[in-house]
Amino acid sequence: MAKQAITTREKDYSQWYLDIVKEADLSDYSPVRGCMVIKPTGYAIWEMIQQGLDKRIKDTGHVNAYFPLFIPVSFMTKEAQHVEGFAPEVAVVTHHRLESDGKGGLVPAAPLEEPLVVRPTSEAIIGDSFSRWVQSWRDLPLLINQWANVVRWELRTRPFLRTAEFLWQEGHTAHATHDEAEEETLKILHEVYSDFVENVMAIPVFKGLKTDKEKFAGALRTYAIEAMMQDGKALQAGTSHNLGQNFAKAFEIKFQGQNQNEIEYAWTTSWGVSTRLVGALIMAHSDDDGLVLPPRLAPTQAVIVPIYKTDDEKAATLAAAEQLKAAIGDKARVKIDARDNVTPGFKFNEWEVKGIPVRIEIGPRDVANQTVVLGRRDRPGKEGKRFVSWAELPETLPQLLEEIQAALYERAKAFRDSHVVDVANYTELAAAVETGFARAWWAGSREDEDKIQTELKATIRCIPLDQPGGEGVCVLTGQPATQQVLFARSY
Amino acid sequence: MAKQAITTREKDYSQWYLDIVKEADLSDYSPVRGCMVIKPTGYAIWEMIQQGLDKRIKDTGHVNAYFPLFIPVSFMTKEAQHVEGFAPEVAVVTHHRLESDGKGGLVPAAPLEEPLVVRPTSEAIIGDSFSRWVQSWRDLPLLINQWANVVRWELRTRPFLRTAEFLWQEGHTAHATHDEAEEETLKILHEVYSDFVENVMAIPVFKGLKTDKEKFAGALRTYAIEAMMQDGKALQAGTSHNLGQNFAKAFEIKFQGQNQNEIEYAWTTSWGVSTRLVGALIMAHSDDDGLVLPPRLAPTQAVIVPIYKTDDEKAATLAAAEQLKAAIGDKARVKIDARDNVTPGFKFNEWEVKGIPVRIEIGPRDVANQTVVLGRRDRPGKEGKRFVSWAELPETLPQLLEEIQAALYERAKAFRDSHVVDVANYTELAAAVETGFARAWWAGSREDEDKIQTELKATIRCIPLDQPGGEGVCVLTGQPATQQVLFARSY
Ligand SMILES: [Zn+2]
Ligand SMILES: [Zn+2]
Repeated sequence: MAKQAITTREKDYSQWYLDIVKEADLSDYSPVRGCMVIKPTGYAIWEMIQQGLDKRIKDTGHVNAYFPLFIPVSFMTKEAQHVEGFAPEVAVVTHHRLESDGKGGLVPAAPLEEPLVVRPTSEAIIGDSFSRWVQSWRDLPLLINQWANVVRWELRTRPFLRTAEFLWQEGHTAHATHDEAEEETLKILHEVYSDFVENVMAIPVFKGLKTDKEKFAGALRTYAIEAMMQDGKALQAGTSHNLGQNFAKAFEIKFQGQNQNEIEYAWTTSWGVSTRLVGALIMAHSDDDGLVLPPRLAPTQAVIVPIYKTDDEKAATLAAAEQLKAAIGDKARVKIDARDNVTPGFKFNEWEVKGIPVRIEIGPRDVANQTVVLGRRDRPGKEGKRFVSWAELPETLPQLLEEIQAALYERAKAFRDSHVVDVANYTELAAAVETGFARAWWAGSREDEDKIQTELKATIRCIPLDQPGGEGVCVLTGQPATQQVLFARSY
Repeated sequence: MAKQAITTREKDYSQWYLDIVKEADLSDYSPVRGCMVIKPTGYAIWEMIQQGLDKRIKDTGHVNAYFPLFIPVSFMTKEAQHVEGFAPEVAVVTHHRLESDGKGGLVPAAPLEEPLVVRPTSEAIIGDSFSRWVQSWRDLPLLINQWANVVRWELRTRPFLRTAEFLWQEGHTAHATHDEAEEETLKILHEVYSDFVENVMAIPVFKGLKTDKEKFAGALRTYAIEAMMQDGKALQAGTSHNLGQNFAKAFEIKFQGQNQNEIEYAWTTSWGVSTRLVGALIMAHSDDDGLVLPPRLAPTQAVIVPIYKTDDEKAATLAAAEQLKAAIGDKARVKIDARDNVTPGFKFNEWEVKGIPVRIEIGPRDVANQTVVLGRRDRPGKEGKRFVSWAELPETLPQLLEEIQAALYERAKAFRDSHVVDVANYTELAAAVETGFARAWWAGSREDEDKIQTELKATIRCIPLDQPGGEGVCVLTGQPATQQVLFARSY
């Protein structure tokens, strides 16, 4: 087995992550600094994420649209905080032609009158459209989503977690009142993001509000879902912003109200999740043997591996495989691995590394007995094995997949809960963020957050929506505090 | 009715097209020169195109992946014809930061060591990946597809037909032999592109080979599907390129052969269709009243419009609408237009302009009779109307939709066939391309093609795969010719 290709988490967590990405064939480096190639195996996972989110986004009343990749530089300056946040990391298009340099090379030619930014996010360009689309209260709410690529120039990159270009969806909505915008922001957090990440990706999340220090550049309030990775660090898996009237004022998104002739500024929101989720997936479930995919997200949920020596055995086991796949039908996403040039052991290893939830073995004896052996990816070895009759398989397999789904969620949740520590003072806080999240009463200032970030490399991940109530003592200042926050180091 | 907003085809075909785009709410102008906003109604059509093509692309054995948006300039120079074709129209990223100019504006800062091109197509960047992924004959065929945005700087643009940024899919494959690459190129042309465009979009196409003058920059051979628009002009609806070993040699895509130790260059293909198809759709079927959508492509196939005056009538017609929608279930994609602030006439007009194939009217008398009135978009007025009982509707509606699908195809095909003229000499050729396609025997040179393009503004759209056989006389040179070609003006 080629498992030695994967560094153990114990030995080097960061290298383990890169090894999983490589051995599970999820992405490849590219000759463009900071950009990755998403390989077919990785992209198939992203397609499952897209499908699951797209359905939830549409079920909550949104429609998809597409806006330009390029944003005129002058648009970026319209919202002051926004430009401050993004100007340092935008790719800038300055020319629209290449010409020969006379030495076999090419040089940029035909300078643009106004340089264009490659979108790092689309509030500015969509705000411009919204200013034309919104005229009256009848045009509201305007509920739009976009699937797109975005670029934020990063020097230190990691596949899926931090790349110069990444894929995402970005929702952009406009509403008549603050409260409707707030309701939308929270609906996305609950019904779209945490529902999908918890129920399909099997990753438990904390839902909470960001502090002013951590909120989106230009937002009134940012909500986020925060997941814990197996090294105890936090990964922000999705954000939902109530933008207040900031962008409406910057881009003149105005409407005539229902009951008066007054012109009002709209209230807008934006929200997004990205290919980062693939990184979250890897770090939430995988083990030292490779990727582990939750069944609901797995493009292939089970692989049938026929085991044979003779031609007769080959014919019999392959025929059985086809028959079983047909019997399962659309009850599960099943693939037959009929390759003839590699051994069953090689196949077992490959599907283990790639995280396929269930392996179905059929050998000649299984054909004789009309049984198969099911092996669970999440429980390697004998413990995860069971014999099932052909007749039962179409019923048993979907049940087993749901069992695995639940087990992965429970395992991730148990890990997370055992790595969240309630801390009462700075020493405990410093210790807790070494291995997980610290839950603390908090009444500090932005400067206090900066101090903790500098000293402990930890930030307030969120102010959880779920609060105990009552009052406590601030972990840093000792002042009375009315809310708890979660501190952690993060990706 | 607001139909006067649409210029008639007779009066100004080009303005008619723009009016349809605007009135059917398909796209919007953007502040970025040459870039359009695809509005939700237009994007929903693109999503249907994506789904239909993606299924066919996967059914023929391909998998999706994603490659960087940016291509280092030095990569563009590796294939000589390729760079010649694309260098004049690429957007170039030269900086990765914006900084304050001290006067409230922003200027590009942090120049890149090597400028990056925004992909106009991805042969170069994918060729680089393929050079690493292909090592042995066992790695072949490599069958990849990508859904992406691309940028080709255009000064004269038209929504969907020609925009600086557009959305597309681009397939890229590598094979062990010339014949396998050729087979792939033709499989895509037949089983993916023409199957989809004819059977789902209801647009008849000519399948053929491009002349050397018209082929893709860097290809050995380019095949295309060519459709006729209602003004008699051609629209290239999809292309499939056999790239030979040109890109394999430029990007070092090499493999060890099965039967010898020799290292060989792979044979590659590429193929694509884009949001241009939405333009083709508009110009193939729509009329002076608005868009006409073929049912199989229509995101919404039928709209139920309740007609009422009193509250009781409203309750009764809406309840009937809900009941009928439930009875139809997934047999058709049906929407109820329950808006209270606009009249039924307004709704009829809106769905007509937006091209919904069937309108279902339910008034109080229909409720009493347990009937509905069905109206066909493709046959306005009394001719397209019929009464159907509630009991029959779930059966009748899907049948009617298929009837409309076939009728649209037949109508487009009859139009096309009556606008293809067999021409025997230059005078006939010149006349024919004024109103449609000219079919001619051809033995001319590339210079002869240039001459005809200059004089008649017509090009050889393709050498149809379907040839009569035998021999004829070249329409231009009078020399003996063994093949017929199609001349037309084109989008
Ligand atoms: Zn631990
Ligand atoms: Zn005509």
